Amino acid sequence: MVRETSPSPRKPVVGVTMGDPAGVGAEVIVKALADPAVRKRARYVVYGLNELLTYAADLAEIEPYWHRLQHDSPRAEHALVHDVVVLDYDEFGSLGFFDDPRPSRPNGVASLRFLDDAVAATRRDTHDAGIDALCTAPIAKASWHLAGTKFPGHTELLQHRTKAKRAAMMFVGTEPDGTPIRTVLATIHVALMDVRNLLTIGCVYDAIDLAHAALVGMGVKDPRIGVCGLNPHASENGAFGDEERRIITPAIELAVKHGIDARGPFPADTLYTQKQRQRSDLTVAMYHDQGLIPLKMLAFDNAVNTTLGLPIIRTSPDHGTAFDIAGKNQADPGSMKAALHLAADLAAAKLREQPASAREAS
Amino acid sequence: MVRETSPSPRKPVVGVTMGDPAGVGAEVIVKALADPAVRKRARYVVYGLNELLTYAADLAEIEPYWHRLQHDSPRAEHALVHDVVVLDYDEFGSLGFFDDPRPSRPNGVASLRFLDDAVAATRRDTHDAGIDALCTAPIAKASWHLAGTKFPGHTELLQHRTKAKRAAMMFVGTEPDGTPIRTVLATIHVALMDVRNLLTIGCVYDAIDLAHAALVGMGVKDPRIGVCGLNPHASENGAFGDEERRIITPAIELAVKHGIDARGPFPADTLYTQKQRQRSDLTVAMYHDQGLIPLKMLAFDNAVNTTLGLPIIRTSPDHGTAFDIAGKNQADPGSMKAALHLAADLAAAKLREQPASAREAS
Repeated sequence: MVRETSPSPRKPVVGVTMGDPAGVGAEVIVKALADPAVRKRARYVVYGLNELLTYAADLAEIEPYWHRLQHDSPRAEHALVHDVVVLDYDEFGSLGFFDDPRPSRPNGVASLRFLDDAVAATRRDTHDAGIDALCTAPIAKASWHLAGTKFPGHTELLQHRTKAKRAAMMFVGTEPDGTPIRTVLATIHVALMDVRNLLTIGCVYDAIDLAHAALVGMGVKDPRIGVCGLNPHASENGAFGDEERRIITPAIELAVKHGIDARGPFPADTLYTQKQRQRSDLTVAMYHDQGLIPLKMLAFDNAVNTTLGLPIIRTSPDHGTAFDIAGKNQADPGSMKAALHLAADLAAAKLREQPASAREAS
Repeated sequence: MVRETSPSPRKPVVGVTMGDPAGVGAEVIVKALADPAVRKRARYVVYGLNELLTYAADLAEIEPYWHRLQHDSPRAEHALVHDVVVLDYDEFGSLGFFDDPRPSRPNGVASLRFLDDAVAATRRDTHDAGIDALCTAPIAKASWHLAGTKFPGHTELLQHRTKAKRAAMMFVGTEPDGTPIRTVLATIHVALMDVRNLLTIGCVYDAIDLAHAALVGMGVKDPRIGVCGLNPHASENGAFGDEERRIITPAIELAVKHGIDARGPFPADTLYTQKQRQRSDLTVAMYHDQGLIPLKMLAFDNAVNTTLGLPIIRTSPDHGTAFDIAGKNQADPGSMKAALHLAADLAAAKLREQPASAREAS
């Protein structure tokens, strides 16, 4: 998926956050990192609770393969040479998480901490326990809310911490026949009726522009972008709703003026039919379900989320905490594997792009 | 799809309205009614412009097979014995419709007239040029708007004309492997941001209840209904949006109290994955694209719309006017055929249910 330019100077280091301790994060991490194909591509640092990883490995009959370090031990400040290192936060405890898995304040505090520490590591050199990319297991937004953070999700927190001016969520999956399906969202985890206050020419344009840049970075030649309308039938010339005329069409025109092959707004219910999908390399959806319904239908177990516009690389599986099956050894690690692959590939591409001097130094 | 109880006493008569003259209505009607399998099931009365039907037949190299009557001729007031009768409204003219197909006031006036006359015919006995069911080709809502009607679409007009207290749109299609896919919408052709003012416990309950009755009528045993949330992830316990708690959950609880197997609200992006679809016979979607994106992805060329809750039978293809390909002999009649089949099947079932005395009289 990422263009091969020159051999990568060293294995990238991918930081993996466990997400909500009561969710399936520990299980999909343990299962995904047990796959030799995943391990070959990078070294990994997991931020989470060792006890939960051990529990998941035990249920899945996987022999623990990682090196545990207490996260605040002096050794955790240095280069981590093992294939997989777990930075353990055992002060958060873990007993009883799976008796009644649900959002809670302690879970929110823990998952915020894993993420904050991993983000800090993206700013450090790998000689100094730094990481090249971030792969995040699902958090429960309700736990974060209970923990008192103002950020509704990963993307908003990461955008704030990295001072990124713009950000957009891209989802990438592969259909059973191998066709890639990609979608970028103009608005994300908000109440649907709040889209009214959030959808602007700027956010639609940013989604198109960031999508275009990402496709070029992924080696897609002359990327074609199809843009959804917001309303049924893309409003049928304004018969119901005016966002197409006021917001989406101007954003598309602006993108076209900047040399981007963006078209639309198209009725969302026809844009995702097989015939129409072939006409674009990526779709821009106006809101979460408009992009995620088709994506999960076509690529349920391998879809990956990556945040565009950040100065750091960040991917994540596209499933949630799945509290209903947490701790039962029923979770499918397919999407987590795909997220780790993408993080490793993007990090390797970035390492190749760095000048030789910077590479020597790192 | 419709339960077989006893042989139908006579062939049903299906009225077919042409819809917007500048759309693909004439073409899909000509092509669909040319199919012997369609003609076998019923007799048909088409309300529209003969010149457009002739033009479409000519391009498709179909020998005209219908009997034309001027709609206001005295003969049109009597029983119509031909397999296919076209009631022609040539006073509306038709030349130049396909030079630049787009919504217009005259098109709106014409398509409203076809529909009004067909609705009137549903109230008459077939001895008196009446019809048993209605199948409507697509109108352009913008043309209707220009023609000054207050009705945004077929469903609202039909509900008003038939004084139906409630109505809901059901879409039915068949996946390539033969699995039926069915969805009922709680809100229909409105600006997405207006859903805020329209979504009530009553309209969600009606959608569930009408869906249940329709499934029973179609012979589905112990129907299971899956209900979508409105917000991303069905709001994740209220983290974004409260419609699940305020509106959708109470509507589901009310339906369950009335003995209906309704479940949810589920996140829409997972409810339509293959695994989840197998767990319900029908989904209730909160807004147009939430139901239509999956339906058109799975059953693009055979999906059909039928209006639930009316005292008359009404079906329609699930595509629009398709102005971009109108008059070019490129339209696929698959959905129109399926809509005619469903209208004929539902009408035959209704005829079988009528007491013998009523049958004799008709």
